[in-house]
Amino acid sequence: MLPSRAELESAAARLAGQVRRTPVLDVHGDELGVPARVVLKLELTQHTGSFKARGALNSVLSLPEGTTGVAAASGGNHGAALAWAAGHAGIAADVFVPSTSPQEKVDRIRGYGATAHVVEGYYPQAAEAARAFVDSHPVEMVHAYDQRTITCGAATLGLEIAQQVQAADHVLVACGGGGLFSGTALALRDQVPVVPVEPERCANLAAARAAGEPVEIEVGGVAADSLGSSTVGRYAFAVSTELDLPPVLVDDDAIVAARRWLWQRCRVLAEPGAATPLAALMTGAVAVRPGEVVVVVVSGGNNPSIP
Amino acid sequence: MLPSRAELESAAARLAGQVRRTPVLDVHGDELGVPARVVLKLELTQHTGSFKARGALNSVLSLPEGTTGVAAASGGNHGAALAWAAGHAGIAADVFVPSTSPQEKVDRIRGYGATAHVVEGYYPQAAEAARAFVDSHPVEMVHAYDQRTITCGAATLGLEIAQQVQAADHVLVACGGGGLFSGTALALRDQVPVVPVEPERCANLAAARAAGEPVEIEVGGVAADSLGSSTVGRYAFAVSTELDLPPVLVDDDAIVAARRWLWQRCRVLAEPGAATPLAALMTGAVAVRPGEVVVVVVSGGNNPSIP
Repeated sequence: MLPSRAELESAAARLAGQVRRTPVLDVHGDELGVPARVVLKLELTQHTGSFKARGALNSVLSLPEGTTGVAAASGGNHGAALAWAAGHAGIAADVFVPSTSPQEKVDRIRGYGATAHVVEGYYPQAAEAARAFVDSHPVEMVHAYDQRTITCGAATLGLEIAQQVQAADHVLVACGGGGLFSGTALALRDQVPVVPVEPERCANLAAARAAGEPVEIEVGGVAADSLGSSTVGRYAFAVSTELDLPPVLVDDDAIVAARRWLWQRCRVLAEPGAATPLAALMTGAVAVRPGEVVVVVVSGGNNPSIP
Repeated sequence: MLPSRAELESAAARLAGQVRRTPVLDVHGDELGVPARVVLKLELTQHTGSFKARGALNSVLSLPEGTTGVAAASGGNHGAALAWAAGHAGIAADVFVPSTSPQEKVDRIRGYGATAHVVEGYYPQAAEAARAFVDSHPVEMVHAYDQRTITCGAATLGLEIAQQVQAADHVLVACGGGGLFSGTALALRDQVPVVPVEPERCANLAAARAAGEPVEIEVGGVAADSLGSSTVGRYAFAVSTELDLPPVLVDDDAIVAARRWLWQRCRVLAEPGAATPLAALMTGAVAVRPGEVVVVVVSGGNNPSIP
């Protein structure tokens, strides 16, 4: 049921040269108060400013023959990534954005050449409009996280880490809907444990693990714009369970402090959600032994206030 | 007179593991309208947010035995870099800051453990106070750019580029006082031409080339905070002349556009001066042939308004 190694590698072949191979930055653990080598994977330098470009383009390039376009409901990183991916592949994209999203996000989607439909209301209203559109047009819906091609696209980030960092002991990623987590964990399966880090106020994977299945939760806090899915994806839940990779939680203050450290000490301007895995390292929520190598994925930079 | 290859390599050995090996990001030239592979050297992720950390630490680690501290006049990147380097080496730093510098810069110098002396007036008054201090204390002055140890420290960035990017055809760097230019050009001598790029309104190297020697000019414009030295350094002038590497000029609008591109397309938040070499590529001021490889150094990120 979970994507095989071969599937992940075909995604990597499909995306080769079309997404950026994002760089890694080595920092001394003692700068962060941990006895390890810390490697930041600067995925915020990816096309569209987040890892979402990988899954979006993989989804677009995996469409059934004859599909003339894609659609999604999103006011955030997925919408921009899908707009970019569709433009890159030369097909149409219709993105349904809740009217609560800032105008800047709408402009960004349009800037990549997609049609942005502003839908009165919140995310559920936008999702309903997107479904109605897909029902009446020869286009395919691309889910923001819980779709096989999305997991396989995100996996290419994990395959890159394996090439860029030898002998990593931990890979820390943010977990919202879980596309990034499921992909990287599968890519690094049997090599390095991938730790899904959730904000306490967006802990949908922790809730799912407690309930034995994905459940709806209330979300909020500083990272809700990128990690605030009310339910974790089925792929992420299955990966967490089958590979025994439980989530680690951090509070909002720790996320803010980690984001500030990235800016002050590295001039890396991450969105709050993307600072979440570093927060788990800085607070000791992920325990590290002397001499270990920890990879921390900084997955996006699309919420650009300076901390 | 110019530093030898062996001197540059000793600087690299001295700094190994103490400055960051900053990452490179590959982008497609067609994203920038040029028929080349473009590699951004993300030196803004260096300690203290700019390449200045290299020269400052090399200077501090090259001090005569018994020196108890260093001093400088600076309200900018050099002051912060020297404060950091001195703290790193466990010696004192006294930085003389013109009262016209923003409080944030003063706080940053103090944040690295140095003593910041705010001097009523502009840069010349701060420089005079720094000289008086050095005359009456057992400390050494470290110049912001025109000093042998600074050039050799900056050269380590050039040596890194040679390791990170095979077969580069051009390396573009910003030129203010010329520490970065002189160091990288010497490091890459006989391998790749290094192009010093100057804002039209801070064109002290162009003026020096025209006059046959460094001359005082009036400076201004969007990049003056980091590139606005009124005179180019003697090392930079000698390197430009002896290695036949004349400056290329760009206007302020081009700098602003390049800075915006770095932010919008790469989530790299450069200071205006650090976007100057990319501006030379985007405007065609540096001509590139199909298939060439161009390295563009993004040298600092310490002027953090979002474009």
